[in-house]
Amino acid sequence: MSLSQALLNGDRLALARLLTKVENDSTEGREALIELFPHTGRAHLIGVTGAPGTGKSSLVNQMALYYRKNEDKRIAIVAVDPSSPFTGGAVLGDRVRMRDLSGDINVFIRSMASRGSLGGLAQATANVVQVFDAAGFDVVIVETVGAGQSEVDVARLAHTTLVVEAPGLGDDIQAIKAGILEIADILVINKADRPGVENAEKALKSMLELAHPTARVFKHHGTYMSASLPEPDANSNMWIPPIQKTVSTEGQGIAELIRSIARHAEYLRLSGGWALRERTRLEVEIEALIREGLMNRFREEVPAERYEEILDQVLTRNISPWEAVRQLMNGRSQ
Amino acid sequence: MSLSQALLNGDRLALARLLTKVENDSTEGREALIELFPHTGRAHLIGVTGAPGTGKSSLVNQMALYYRKNEDKRIAIVAVDPSSPFTGGAVLGDRVRMRDLSGDINVFIRSMASRGSLGGLAQATANVVQVFDAAGFDVVIVETVGAGQSEVDVARLAHTTLVVEAPGLGDDIQAIKAGILEIADILVINKADRPGVENAEKALKSMLELAHPTARVFKHHGTYMSASLPEPDANSNMWIPPIQKTVSTEGQGIAELIRSIARHAEYLRLSGGWALRERTRLEVEIEALIREGLMNRFREEVPAERYEEILDQVLTRNISPWEAVRQLMNGRSQ
Repeated sequence: MSLSQALLNGDRLALARLLTKVENDSTEGREALIELFPHTGRAHLIGVTGAPGTGKSSLVNQMALYYRKNEDKRIAIVAVDPSSPFTGGAVLGDRVRMRDLSGDINVFIRSMASRGSLGGLAQATANVVQVFDAAGFDVVIVETVGAGQSEVDVARLAHTTLVVEAPGLGDDIQAIKAGILEIADILVINKADRPGVENAEKALKSMLELAHPTARVFKHHGTYMSASLPEPDANSNMWIPPIQKTVSTEGQGIAELIRSIARHAEYLRLSGGWALRERTRLEVEIEALIREGLMNRFREEVPAERYEEILDQVLTRNISPWEAVRQLMNGRSQ
Repeated sequence: MSLSQALLNGDRLALARLLTKVENDSTEGREALIELFPHTGRAHLIGVTGAPGTGKSSLVNQMALYYRKNEDKRIAIVAVDPSSPFTGGAVLGDRVRMRDLSGDINVFIRSMASRGSLGGLAQATANVVQVFDAAGFDVVIVETVGAGQSEVDVARLAHTTLVVEAPGLGDDIQAIKAGILEIADILVINKADRPGVENAEKALKSMLELAHPTARVFKHHGTYMSASLPEPDANSNMWIPPIQKTVSTEGQGIAELIRSIARHAEYLRLSGGWALRERTRLEVEIEALIREGLMNRFREEVPAERYEEILDQVLTRNISPWEAVRQLMNGRSQ
């Protein structure tokens, strides 16, 4: 029996072995992904992102515990740490989590660290998520550390993206918030027992108002902002990110957060957003594969000596990079 | 007279206008870059990166002030904020800096915010740096917020990369440090008047030892670590990142940091590393242009209906993304 078959039959060891093969982008891993692909598309993919120090890992831990205790869902957690080519960060994360979740066979935690390019990491993460999806996990949570492209990639991958903030993290954090609103489906203020929580909430609300500046939205806005659990408005085809306050170390606010996530999923299904996100996700994946394929083909077609020769001309400033590319692309078959 | 010519003649307004054209990747901008390319390759490119809250902007500010007062160098600062598609973060950064540096025509500050993909931002930053280089700025400082791919891209662009830390930023930061050592030429502990500075230094030192685990390096290591201003060892062809402590708000440690940067530049020139980094940088740029060119050609060759048709088959799980790409790439000329 193939690893893929074993995985589809619920074999946990096969799952672990396949994840490694897929993460390493081995031929066997790639073949397994092709075999598993028809079984994907059922899991709810949740992205959790935010700046360092916001307590994301602890929040994800609590979310998983809640799903296990109250909804009997099978949960996979993928912890992505693009800044750690060593295992330091990721392993630390696992250890912290394991205290509460170890021994539960319906929770599976996978840490991924950067292997070279971020493009590679995003693709590897997408593939690992597909394996969990095919293996029948109901919820796959993808957590990223960092403030930058990794968030955008997570958002592209996820159905529901949580952006986690915490009070009092300084000015840089404020700046990050602005950019991150574009990808947030739900805003979480974690560590909400700390001083400065009102300011953090106020700042997020003003940014939400800036981001949704039409009168019609402002009307809904008032409703959403005053309610602790905003209702998605399926008719308006518009989702205003609710702000959820949590204290993950105490488990506070987790139930409300999980309800908010469920409402977002419902909203996506009613509005057609679910299918749209699936489409975007697969398009991004296909485009990445095409880029890789084109580049590989190009490398085969252009002799190394010719490439070096043209690069030398750029280094000596005889020709510009654009001219170099023009020559390389036109002379491929020479 | 063309904008490029005006820029080469020292016209500041032409510089500002060209930067905008280049950042927007307009045809005129691209033509200007080709015209300016022979005049590039002279500036010292310094990357400054680190997690939010470490005080990078203030440090860069002080570095620029020092260069102006003591070395009469012309300084350009490129503030890259990949997480801010709105202008919030970048504009804030400018305002803080402007108090000390405004009015000095030999300092030019440019803020860049994300426009779509990070790849696009990295390329736009590289192009803006080339404009400053051609315009005769002696030092171009590229500052990034964030923890992830943006640092790696900065390191690829820069001759000298500073990684900025600060005491007491929590566990997530620790994890980030591990990954960041790979790209650091100089480690800066900013806010060194805060509690926890000894721990931060100790942690960085242990990580450095892990990263350079040969006996020979350990020997140098002892020397480097005990000296406040480590000397590069040109003969060993090895650079161990020195740790510099600064309090940027007070200007403390800036002179030592600038000397350390100068030593790194000297080391690069003696060891051949300068030419190697130039080569890597141009190779990365050329590869990005090739990828873009190949993808554009592909889009022209594959009819949109065929692409949609195949994408639909993936969405319905009839074929896998890999099979879709195989069909698209083989059927290009159909």
